[in-house]
Amino acid sequence: MPDVQSLRPRRVFKLSRVGVTRVRKPIQIERSGVKVTLSAEIDVGVDLPATQKGSHLSRNIEVIESIVDQSVRTPQKSLEALCIKVASTLLERHDYATYAQILIEADYFIERSISGFGKSLEPYRIKAGVCHPRNGKPTKMIGVEVIGMTVCPCAMEEVRSILTKKHPDCKELLEKIPVPSHNQRNIAMMELTSPFSAPEVDADDLIDILEQALSAPTHGLLKRKEEGELVYKAFTNPRFVEDVAREALDLLLVRFPNLPDDVEVLVRSKAEESIHKYEAFAERVATVGELRE
Amino acid sequence: MPDVQSLRPRRVFKLSRVGVTRVRKPIQIERSGVKVTLSAEIDVGVDLPATQKGSHLSRNIEVIESIVDQSVRTPQKSLEALCIKVASTLLERHDYATYAQILIEADYFIERSISGFGKSLEPYRIKAGVCHPRNGKPTKMIGVEVIGMTVCPCAMEEVRSILTKKHPDCKELLEKIPVPSHNQRNIAMMELTSPFSAPEVDADDLIDILEQALSAPTHGLLKRKEEGELVYKAFTNPRFVEDVAREALDLLLVRFPNLPDDVEVLVRSKAEESIHKYEAFAERVATVGELRE
Amino acid sequence: MPDVQSLRPRRVFKLSRVGVTRVRKPIQIERSGVKVTLSAEIDVGVDLPATQKGSHLSRNIEVIESIVDQSVRTPQKSLEALCIKVASTLLERHDYATYAQILIEADYFIERSISGFGKSLEPYRIKAGVCHPRNGKPTKMIGVEVIGMTVCPCAMEEVRSILTKKHPDCKELLEKIPVPSHNQRNIAMMELTSPFSAPEVDADDLIDILEQALSAPTHGLLKRKEEGELVYKAFTNPRFVEDVAREALDLLLVRFPNLPDDVEVLVRSKAEESIHKYEAFAERVATVGELRE
Amino acid sequence: MPDVQSLRPRRVFKLSRVGVTRVRKPIQIERSGVKVTLSAEIDVGVDLPATQKGSHLSRNIEVIESIVDQSVRTPQKSLEALCIKVASTLLERHDYATYAQILIEADYFIERSISGFGKSLEPYRIKAGVCHPRNGKPTKMIGVEVIGMTVCPCAMEEVRSILTKKHPDCKELLEKIPVPSHNQRNIAMMELTSPFSAPEVDADDLIDILEQALSAPTHGLLKRKEEGELVYKAFTNPRFVEDVAREALDLLLVRFPNLPDDVEVLVRSKAEESIHKYEAFAERVATVGELRE
Repeated sequence: MPDVQSLRPRRVFKLSRVGVTRVRKPIQIERSGVKVTLSAEIDVGVDLPATQKGSHLSRNIEVIESIVDQSVRTPQKSLEALCIKVASTLLERHDYATYAQILIEADYFIERSISGFGKSLEPYRIKAGVCHPRNGKPTKMIGVEVIGMTVCPCAMEEVRSILTKKHPDCKELLEKIPVPSHNQRNIAMMELTSPFSAPEVDADDLIDILEQALSAPTHGLLKRKEEGELVYKAFTNPRFVEDVAREALDLLLVRFPNLPDDVEVLVRSKAEESIHKYEAFAERVATVGELRE
Repeated sequence: MPDVQSLRPRRVFKLSRVGVTRVRKPIQIERSGVKVTLSAEIDVGVDLPATQKGSHLSRNIEVIESIVDQSVRTPQKSLEALCIKVASTLLERHDYATYAQILIEADYFIERSISGFGKSLEPYRIKAGVCHPRNGKPTKMIGVEVIGMTVCPCAMEEVRSILTKKHPDCKELLEKIPVPSHNQRNIAMMELTSPFSAPEVDADDLIDILEQALSAPTHGLLKRKEEGELVYKAFTNPRFVEDVAREALDLLLVRFPNLPDDVEVLVRSKAEESIHKYEAFAERVATVGELRE
Repeated sequence: MPDVQSLRPRRVFKLSRVGVTRVRKPIQIERSGVKVTLSAEIDVGVDLPATQKGSHLSRNIEVIESIVDQSVRTPQKSLEALCIKVASTLLERHDYATYAQILIEADYFIERSISGFGKSLEPYRIKAGVCHPRNGKPTKMIGVEVIGMTVCPCAMEEVRSILTKKHPDCKELLEKIPVPSHNQRNIAMMELTSPFSAPEVDADDLIDILEQALSAPTHGLLKRKEEGELVYKAFTNPRFVEDVAREALDLLLVRFPNLPDDVEVLVRSKAEESIHKYEAFAERVATVGELRE
Repeated sequence: MPDVQSLRPRRVFKLSRVGVTRVRKPIQIERSGVKVTLSAEIDVGVDLPATQKGSHLSRNIEVIESIVDQSVRTPQKSLEALCIKVASTLLERHDYATYAQILIEADYFIERSISGFGKSLEPYRIKAGVCHPRNGKPTKMIGVEVIGMTVCPCAMEEVRSILTKKHPDCKELLEKIPVPSHNQRNIAMMELTSPFSAPEVDADDLIDILEQALSAPTHGLLKRKEEGELVYKAFTNPRFVEDVAREALDLLLVRFPNLPDDVEVLVRSKAEESIHKYEAFAERVATVGELRE
């Protein structure tokens, strides 16, 4: 019986990427002795030469099964380590491919403590991936998504002006205190793409950077007093989506002074506007070298 | 060749509902001479007796095609009129069914003007449906979903207290003015289910009610001054999700004093919290009679 | 400073349910010595009397934190045990509430082996909840969602007729073998709602029932030969959405002969039709007593 | 009062793109005398120099309002015409920007007739966009998404082999007829990005190409006989995701022999596998020139 996938196709176009997407699997990572279980969605793919009709998709799943399912029994020490293992095994199994790729995305929880209060597990999104050319150096990607809060600096000045007109004798005070403004959920994300040999950047550090870049992070549990303090803090720190993106870039360069110039950075801040029904966003795509200029 | 659907099934259970869901169709409604095109998702279904293996699903589509597609050529005068026509035709075509049901959901746009400014088309969601028992009276449902803004009354008092401690000599002013609080997108929705013979309630009225029940509605286009005024208005009108739900119920009873007691109301307010990563919600399910008690 | 939530509201309507929704948390369950980590979404809520302005939403989160986050350190023995603990603690913390409710939903993985092949972790969705009236008996819900495959029996007969016309001399063979028909993803789900005191039904059993009710289950990893066998099996077992719903009800009654008559069953089969752009569905809502009639 | 957006930012990074996303608006296009209303989602953005704190987001909405809302009164003759008008007006209104961008996405319906049967409105997705550099030539993008059906050629051979083993005397017939295989929904999409001056490619032509590239298109309404014929047709035309992508590329080159070499093509075929819980996909990114090599 013929191996249908290996037949010569009628149309002689090569394909950039053939694979499987949205494969759901639990992944176990063990870091500093602590096991973390991620409920992940995985995409993998390879390219396909013009001379071959089909990619053997079941091989992708075999590779995922053998490495990812195994992680439930023998945890990997990082997503990065798991991704490179999958990508290089994909190249072995698809001998016609010139490159292989894997992308993993999952919910991710970090224990955060709030001043004078107990600890809580806060949810984030984490992404990791590897692109592995057969005759070249692999690159890796690490990314995070953080939900936080932004307060609009522009509307605050408008409201200050309204209040000052109504209470002209209190002008002095009104110039000193934070006044009402619209604030909203902000979905901030950052992705770093680097040569695989570059030093590992921890997802937790990127989450820290984004939380600092916002007007304020958000918390699952806030009693009345803490809620007031968090809101006060956010309103003394009003930020546009543009500010969040720029602040995050600045914090990245400060925290990682040794990051190689060829690391590519994508940062995006998206505000689910409370005064509009649509979203506002700001983004930058650049190499670390360009950012340092 | 046998009509497979009409065979006797192995398992003799009747089924509550068999049909098709997420059928996408454009629908045209003509109201007061103005044509409105909705890009709708439609669900229809009928029950199935234990003695019959399958429902003839293509008949559902025939009915939808003949009535809904026709609306593109000859607009219906309301979603309600279209729904009852579909439901009663479903009963004709499925002679074994004891009831038929249709539910339509679509984006819906209304032209809104903002004080001292041009007009803009604001987006909403609209829902309509009919349940038609063969030996009983049909009921109809009309529902809307509105995106607006809520300002938290509780956090405002906490911030007022923080500001008063910092500026004790300005206590008097700080008690009079709106101060910072978290505010966010609120998804408010209301659904009315009534005997089909009850007077028609216009979706636009329900949208008005929900927009008034919020701290403030939101607008697509706001220049700086209007943005300040909208924020100021919202902060002088802080509301919990609970307040939005109750206010909407009150406005409904006031605007429609003749609404029959047996109309069922579902109202829900959901805040996409700016200080948390999850949503807060409040809802009430009751008949108009119960609400009037 | 006033406790804003405890103020008397302007509108004196009670609310059916006030709470938080889409709270993401990892949950650990330990069954037969095996720890399972679920990346869950949690909804909790209580009712609110007409005399009180707001529900104390932070108490909901305190309860979730203390019980759910704790599960990461000391795993619960079932979702059911975790839900009743949350619901009864919610009643303690909201002393004005007459009932409390929790609903949990998560990805869930089970190790499945395929004949003559290795093991693989297959993904499912699991749901669990408890409704706890203060002056009454709590009820519990357990539900699962399974992705499988259905083959249309009706289209198979049509194709058989086409083939027989083209090859009249092979009529006999064509009556014996499975011939082409459209087949597709089927999302089957079942939910059982029972008094809390009813015997525990395991989610794994419900998943088994739904997989048997389909034309065939699906698998992550299938080599060519197994893929052929799975397809052959599915085509010798063609089923409508109606058949899946009925078969699942029958299997439930057979596997759990002692299920009390007052257990409520919801079963739904939804086919993401390969020949249409919309979905077909069949569902039944009934008590076990009604199903046994 | 200061124009907050025009202040000098603390961080002197330029931003690649600042704008608004998911703006929902109805759009009217008039082609050959027929008005089409699209319920669209719109993204627009411009870049922002390092010297400026904020982009004036309300100007984006003013531009959308004035051109898109106007289309409801005076329909545009194509999405392309609408997009270039928005993009060039964005450049006028944001005088600091070096480029402007718009992307529109919407449901789109085409009347299709089925042999010997009535007409039906089939749903598709349509995308259009323009990128407009201030000192350079604008580019345009047109894209479509089509839901159709693929039948797996590989599983068909496996099932043929199973059937032949069971019925060795019918080997001859079994080699001639289509036998069972898994088939599923396939989401096929194609996007063309070209200099704005390139000849306009109609979305309807791209939809035709993708429907021909699949094993078979799908239809809303199929009576039993037509359903059989459609399934028979699809099974005589089995295709991998790879085949769909390549066939679409071939059909594109054949139908548009004059398409300039610098047009960029993205084609993707994604199968929502009926025998797996995940998706398979194949894609190609290339210029028309590369495809012609």
